[in-house]
Amino acid sequence: MTENSSLLAEFPTCPRDTNDRPRVFPSASGAYVTDESGFRWIDFDNARGSILLGHGDPDVAEAVARAATGAAGTATGWSPRVDAVLERLHALCGGEVVGLFRSGTAAVRAAVLAVREATGRPLLLSAGYHGYDPMWYPSGTPLEPNADGVVDFFFDLGLLAELLRAPERVAAVVVSPDHMHLSPAWYRELRRLCSRAGVVLVADEVKVGLRYGAGLSTAELLAPDVWVVAKGMANGHAVSAVGGPRALLRPLKEVSFTSFFEPTILAAADAVLRRVATGEPQRAVREAGERFLRHARKALGDASLPVEIAGDGTFFQFVPATEELEDAFYRAANAEGLLFYAGDNQGVSAAFDDAVLTDAEQRFTRVCGRLSAYAGTAPVDEEARYRVAWNVMDGLREADRDRGTTEALLARLLDD
Amino acid sequence: MTENSSLLAEFPTCPRDTNDRPRVFPSASGAYVTDESGFRWIDFDNARGSILLGHGDPDVAEAVARAATGAAGTATGWSPRVDAVLERLHALCGGEVVGLFRSGTAAVRAAVLAVREATGRPLLLSAGYHGYDPMWYPSGTPLEPNADGVVDFFFDLGLLAELLRAPERVAAVVVSPDHMHLSPAWYRELRRLCSRAGVVLVADEVKVGLRYGAGLSTAELLAPDVWVVAKGMANGHAVSAVGGPRALLRPLKEVSFTSFFEPTILAAADAVLRRVATGEPQRAVREAGERFLRHARKALGDASLPVEIAGDGTFFQFVPATEELEDAFYRAANAEGLLFYAGDNQGVSAAFDDAVLTDAEQRFTRVCGRLSAYAGTAPVDEEARYRVAWNVMDGLREADRDRGTTEALLARLLDD
Repeated sequence: MTENSSLLAEFPTCPRDTNDRPRVFPSASGAYVTDESGFRWIDFDNARGSILLGHGDPDVAEAVARAATGAAGTATGWSPRVDAVLERLHALCGGEVVGLFRSGTAAVRAAVLAVREATGRPLLLSAGYHGYDPMWYPSGTPLEPNADGVVDFFFDLGLLAELLRAPERVAAVVVSPDHMHLSPAWYRELRRLCSRAGVVLVADEVKVGLRYGAGLSTAELLAPDVWVVAKGMANGHAVSAVGGPRALLRPLKEVSFTSFFEPTILAAADAVLRRVATGEPQRAVREAGERFLRHARKALGDASLPVEIAGDGTFFQFVPATEELEDAFYRAANAEGLLFYAGDNQGVSAAFDDAVLTDAEQRFTRVCGRLSAYAGTAPVDEEARYRVAWNVMDGLREADRDRGTTEALLARLLDD
Repeated sequence: MTENSSLLAEFPTCPRDTNDRPRVFPSASGAYVTDESGFRWIDFDNARGSILLGHGDPDVAEAVARAATGAAGTATGWSPRVDAVLERLHALCGGEVVGLFRSGTAAVRAAVLAVREATGRPLLLSAGYHGYDPMWYPSGTPLEPNADGVVDFFFDLGLLAELLRAPERVAAVVVSPDHMHLSPAWYRELRRLCSRAGVVLVADEVKVGLRYGAGLSTAELLAPDVWVVAKGMANGHAVSAVGGPRALLRPLKEVSFTSFFEPTILAAADAVLRRVATGEPQRAVREAGERFLRHARKALGDASLPVEIAGDGTFFQFVPATEELEDAFYRAANAEGLLFYAGDNQGVSAAFDDAVLTDAEQRFTRVCGRLSAYAGTAPVDEEARYRVAWNVMDGLREADRDRGTTEALLARLLDD
């Protein structure tokens, strides 16, 4: 705990204890974070998936340390590192122009407001989380725009098709891709709907961009008009990027912020983008995640625990049969020092080597041992799958359903 | 120049050449930045006043380097550095609660939207620049709210008094203090108007906070209800802060961003706030600036050049008599390697020691020598003073004037 969490205006997402007080980690290294008692946790949270290479990656740390001395540019103005970062982003994600921001929230807001100004159309049709900005707060009534002209379709393509019946009012469809609960077919249908309506498609890949491979995760599935990436590009350092056609992003010309050229962030981004351009860290993450998943699925099965796992080694999510089991599961994981992102996506880093994985597997087996009271209880059902998917994607997982079921699900999940 | 400035979506504020192409600086140290040819400029821009301690300050660089290794916390969660930064901000600027953001733009937007939600009132009465967010874009008609409910009063207290005749509609008055063109009496009258109307006063001290002394520059003049600081707190690193009453800032609870706990930024902020809490760097900046100003005023007088200088050693602004002389002045400064923030405020750093100042003085004398064609030309008049002040404060300098003059000035300056 910390005495000053009451001084903080925000309630930031981070690992918390059972009293909702932030856990305090004075240091971190590779796959591990160390708490105040000296206990070492294995980090599957990784700053909500932004630590791709591991904590304190030596390559990034050295680049940042050098930049902090002034040897690699200055916050006063342009440096060769700006060129390098722009070129790398352009090569990886495309776009006639590329913009740089300080957070995913800032980048997505700037991107969609630019498209709105460029198209002269008022509405944004949205699915998924796009940052803390109040512009995304839900309207009181499903399918009605909020005060900022945003209508949520909750990843339901039937609802989107309805909303696209008046495409001349729609500036853009903006979607945060999820690859745990949506299939390639879902994305292809989304692309078809947007193309048929002649509406701009914005992929908010703040979370998934560059993590699944050396580019956008939806490059082929969606070929988005405008993209945003963030977590995959700088191993936790504060930078995000937008790319797309010059005509749609022209209003971004007005953007200027003081820390734009801050050299340590550019150094981190340059070092990370060079690495992710090879696809190697993403492959390491996926393989480490897959090995852990094989063990976890077997351990859960051996213990007869009704916990599914959605996703793959890149990002995965535990789907416990009940909320009670879910609470017990994360409590047990905490007791064993597995630092999971409670209720959300788990993401290993490229620092998960054999020794870390063996350690993690042993801890996970003990987690299952702690849950023997739940052995053989009722299996995971559709309700549990919808509930858990909602936690991670702020919307409805892909499944066959009629309009009445969709409305009933929304009524229940929005109320929670 | 750089070949990739055309790939960049933004047109960020930074030193540019005569073709508006960004100048490129591969390195920086102390008071100097070095361009691609190896030429060393003396930096009076200092990332628009955010480099208070000098480029690559060893103390900050060491703290950042250590944090980059993971030895001082992790982006995954809370660390002792969060406590330290919150405590230091609280001690320096007050506030029941303190929030942390990644840019001045983000902090000011979050602060005023929080106050709007907390008060339930729709309008924001604004003076000065508050960041790049489109919410601040001017409405087509002076004194009318824009689409985001923002009305600009351009630092004219007569206009503010008119707008405050319906205080029940006003969530807050938000002002970016300027200490070059507004006097203490102006601030006291602003405070009186807000108190009489019972309206919240937000001081957007992104630029000036912590630069004039160990706290808010308007702590005594305004006693603002809510404050925002940024440039003074981390020597160019990407962090900003908001503080104020818990009741007004409660909506900030909803804020959460991925890089919130990023340890290098917290390390920089901790190191810088520890130093600015002593008031020493601010005193060094002011004294260095004053010495330069004494020389500059004398050199301009000796050369019979009609250029006034507004402000003091902490922040100052050149006021040339004509736009033609202004262009010639900054061209001459560039030729001598004085990196001024063209048309805006100049800010030295604490790295301006005797040797740097002597170098700067000699360069400035040569700048005056280059401007001999303007010797003895017409003196600075009120029009020039208004024009130059408008460039730095996006509003009207303090001066006696009637409503007709105010309207005429606004019509002309808004049209430029």
